[in-house]
Amino acid sequence: MTGFLFLYGMPGSGKSTVGKTLADNLNLPFYDLDREIEQSSGKSVWQIFADEGEDGFRRRETEALKHLIGQKSGIVSLGGGSLLAAENRTAVEAAGCVVVLDASLPVMQARLQADPQQRPLLAGELNTKLPTLLKDRSEHYRSFENHVDTGALETWEAAWQVQVLTGLFRVGRMGESGGLSCAYDVRTSTGGLAGIGQELAERGISGPFALVTDENIGPLYASRVMDSIRLSGEIIQTISIPAGEDHKTFQTVNRLWDFFLSNQLDRRSTVVALGGGVVSDLAGFAAATYLRGIRWVGLPTTLLAMADASLGGKTGADLPQGKNLIGAFHSPAFVLADPDVLATLPEREFRSGLAEIIKHGLIADPLLFNACRELAGLSMEDFRKKPLTEIIRRAMAVKIRVIEQDPFEQGSRAVLNAGHTIGHAIELESDYALSHGEAVSIGLAVEAEMAEELGIAHTGLAGELRTVLEGVGLPVDIPAGMDMEAVLAAVFRDKKRAGNGVRFALPVDIGEVRHGIHLTLDELRSNHAFHTSFTRS
Amino acid sequence: MTGFLFLYGMPGSGKSTVGKTLADNLNLPFYDLDREIEQSSGKSVWQIFADEGEDGFRRRETEALKHLIGQKSGIVSLGGGSLLAAENRTAVEAAGCVVVLDASLPVMQARLQADPQQRPLLAGELNTKLPTLLKDRSEHYRSFENHVDTGALETWEAAWQVQVLTGLFRVGRMGESGGLSCAYDVRTSTGGLAGIGQELAERGISGPFALVTDENIGPLYASRVMDSIRLSGEIIQTISIPAGEDHKTFQTVNRLWDFFLSNQLDRRSTVVALGGGVVSDLAGFAAATYLRGIRWVGLPTTLLAMADASLGGKTGADLPQGKNLIGAFHSPAFVLADPDVLATLPEREFRSGLAEIIKHGLIADPLLFNACRELAGLSMEDFRKKPLTEIIRRAMAVKIRVIEQDPFEQGSRAVLNAGHTIGHAIELESDYALSHGEAVSIGLAVEAEMAEELGIAHTGLAGELRTVLEGVGLPVDIPAGMDMEAVLAAVFRDKKRAGNGVRFALPVDIGEVRHGIHLTLDELRSNHAFHTSFTRS
Repeated sequence: MTGFLFLYGMPGSGKSTVGKTLADNLNLPFYDLDREIEQSSGKSVWQIFADEGEDGFRRRETEALKHLIGQKSGIVSLGGGSLLAAENRTAVEAAGCVVVLDASLPVMQARLQADPQQRPLLAGELNTKLPTLLKDRSEHYRSFENHVDTGALETWEAAWQVQVLTGLFRVGRMGESGGLSCAYDVRTSTGGLAGIGQELAERGISGPFALVTDENIGPLYASRVMDSIRLSGEIIQTISIPAGEDHKTFQTVNRLWDFFLSNQLDRRSTVVALGGGVVSDLAGFAAATYLRGIRWVGLPTTLLAMADASLGGKTGADLPQGKNLIGAFHSPAFVLADPDVLATLPEREFRSGLAEIIKHGLIADPLLFNACRELAGLSMEDFRKKPLTEIIRRAMAVKIRVIEQDPFEQGSRAVLNAGHTIGHAIELESDYALSHGEAVSIGLAVEAEMAEELGIAHTGLAGELRTVLEGVGLPVDIPAGMDMEAVLAAVFRDKKRAGNGVRFALPVDIGEVRHGIHLTLDELRSNHAFHTSFTRS
Repeated sequence: MTGFLFLYGMPGSGKSTVGKTLADNLNLPFYDLDREIEQSSGKSVWQIFADEGEDGFRRRETEALKHLIGQKSGIVSLGGGSLLAAENRTAVEAAGCVVVLDASLPVMQARLQADPQQRPLLAGELNTKLPTLLKDRSEHYRSFENHVDTGALETWEAAWQVQVLTGLFRVGRMGESGGLSCAYDVRTSTGGLAGIGQELAERGISGPFALVTDENIGPLYASRVMDSIRLSGEIIQTISIPAGEDHKTFQTVNRLWDFFLSNQLDRRSTVVALGGGVVSDLAGFAAATYLRGIRWVGLPTTLLAMADASLGGKTGADLPQGKNLIGAFHSPAFVLADPDVLATLPEREFRSGLAEIIKHGLIADPLLFNACRELAGLSMEDFRKKPLTEIIRRAMAVKIRVIEQDPFEQGSRAVLNAGHTIGHAIELESDYALSHGEAVSIGLAVEAEMAEELGIAHTGLAGELRTVLEGVGLPVDIPAGMDMEAVLAAVFRDKKRAGNGVRFALPVDIGEVRHGIHLTLDELRSNHAFHTSFTRS
């Protein structure tokens, strides 16, 4: 979205408290429609009801809403009956997204009794009027698509659920880079690429822009981005780099620096990365190191980049000696994921991306894991028809929560390495014949079996995980003929090496991964699940 | 120093208050010797005097001092007569540096009257006993080399003067990089390179180490550093890069990455840069971008690097299109300047380094400016004999204060650009026939004349500045035949360009530079001082 998030629902459903938390989380202004009415009329809601009746109040409400929508953007707590008028509903739905907050009658009653604010429609007889009001309006509320039940939730939890539902994130706590705060907005918005110019302008992200894309993505989507940015009056030049990990080199970074220079990018300019992880790693790293660091924006075009790689501020390139050996932590200034572009994503990349999404479900979100289970057996044609927005948002949400807890990989962020310790090693040993996602899928399956054997995971977890991974068409077995000792050697060359062992992140349950599990070479060799995984295929 | 800083002087001279501020500034423990005596004896100083007499107290004092010196390091506030015993003085002078704090009698009396702490030697009759005590001890205090008069100073000012005098700095407020706090210690210590291993160990800066140096410096000083680091039980490998700005390229950075990899440097390893600005820029940048950022330590070997380039966290390399076009802000973990190594610095580099030092005096330190004035006419032989430690410390102090106020060049740090707007342009136009310091010297002279003409500087300032620059053998006139329009074009390609003009930092007085002075091309062309500077040589 650009524009507004409207919270709607019964009195006592939590619109104001949740709304204020959302506004804080997202660094947006907060408006309470009733307070806006009071301010513009100079009278309390109570007084307006007394002087002008409900009709008079409703007229003022429509006016206040119109006025509000004339503003730029924000979180709005709506009056409980404000969208009964079709005119209002149309205006609101055009201006943004509506989420209805639900709660049970006793919860609402308890909240309202504790609230000193007077509500004319409930005056004096809360316990009889509230049920009637709910009965009258429940069909109306049900007619909205997005609901969050706040009944059993703390305010922050309810706010977070609204964010996951609407795909509105702001990654904070990322420290500073070159003196700039690294908080940034993340949005998932179908068709959003066509409005990127306005999104950037609203955030004060100005040009001149350098669009970095690759030879696959550029012809498909670059013009969409360029047109939108030019429409907002900004200058944008495009460079297309060869597609694929083979070109994730500092030679390509050097080409990008040259391009920035020849287009006279200065310290206030912005690099836009349109593509998958390779493009954003390279463009982000070139931005991190050009004139000691300029701004960049991520427009991920693969499932993997949307759900994972575009978040967290890691940028970099490969050296001939290995992947991601050079790089910098340099957070983007904004990330916009437009699921529309997945329509052209090749099948193998598409399925590979699902591996990290399933991993995110495994780490912290059983609902996401279940949503992935429901993808079992889908053909690419089925996939193309299925809106994946919710799955992407949920996967992003897991990643964002993890990196906010540990922005620079000093501790708990290691849960993201689930499946990756074995995964990286077999990816390397396959000489990259396996994609990253495929290798991670196998890594997850093997590591889950190891976790069962170690008594970390309950029996059956590995089977459950295998089923979901296989369901979306991902491999779960180590390729036939791969040498265990070679894989072990690769495991022990890994960055996660610690003393005489390696630290694993292993699953405990669906929704829980434990990190920092130290295994020595001998312990790994003698793990039955580990060594039999080499003879299964 | 490693070890201790002892504050000594009369009661009321400010030892405890200044000492606590120093301990805060330098992130070191603070000890008050009298409190240590009380703690170990379980009696108040007052009680010890009553029970055991002054002799008994002095015995306990000697013991407490011995015990304290057995600790690692810290700031110590000594009792006012504690070094009268030769034994104590010898021990203290071996363990660190002593600074005597002075103040006038009325100041001390006023401070002591406001202080609730009881002092046996002054009991009851402050106004008669204090002058007697001062008279008895003044010769003793005068026998120490380092003094700071705290009379007219705020506590923070007195603490800062102690730091400048002793060369003990800690650069704070530099934000974070990759989640690591960027505060770091800076030391100037004659002969300090031979003790670098211990300095690093004390700060928890561990190996394996990669020493980066160049072909000029390596043969002279690398073994000194390596021996000391190996003595502390650490592994260190050395790479020597070709000397000179021509090699400040990303190809050299790439060589450094390869070296780090082949020596298996991991995220806990440390890069040590031994050399001038080119070495520290390259080594710092390679460290900033290896595995998304590892630690580095600066051992500057030129006057320029000690007083300027090694501080502030700027790292980078040149591109064929221009200098410092790529880079990162990446603060070192420690900087140690050992003036001993200046003995081998070539004359031209030596004199060039003085340009930035004179600039630092111009920006904020009239005493430093005067100290530079006194260098007039010295031959290199004279220079080699003259201890420059004080000048280096004062120049560092200016730089540190400026960068702490504006770590990422968003505002006031621009005062450091004094002389550089014109300087950079003529350096470029000379095709680097002028050294950076020589170009800055000319830039300072020309910009000061412009500042006089603009009414920013008082009449005579430019002449004064020229005299000091010429005095140390630096050029002050634009080389004959240099084309004004070419220089103007270079000025307007500069990073400091803003809209249709360029921002200058121009001198107001010795010790004051004003930044953000916007001049358009026409204003510059019509500045008499500017355009006649091209016809003077």
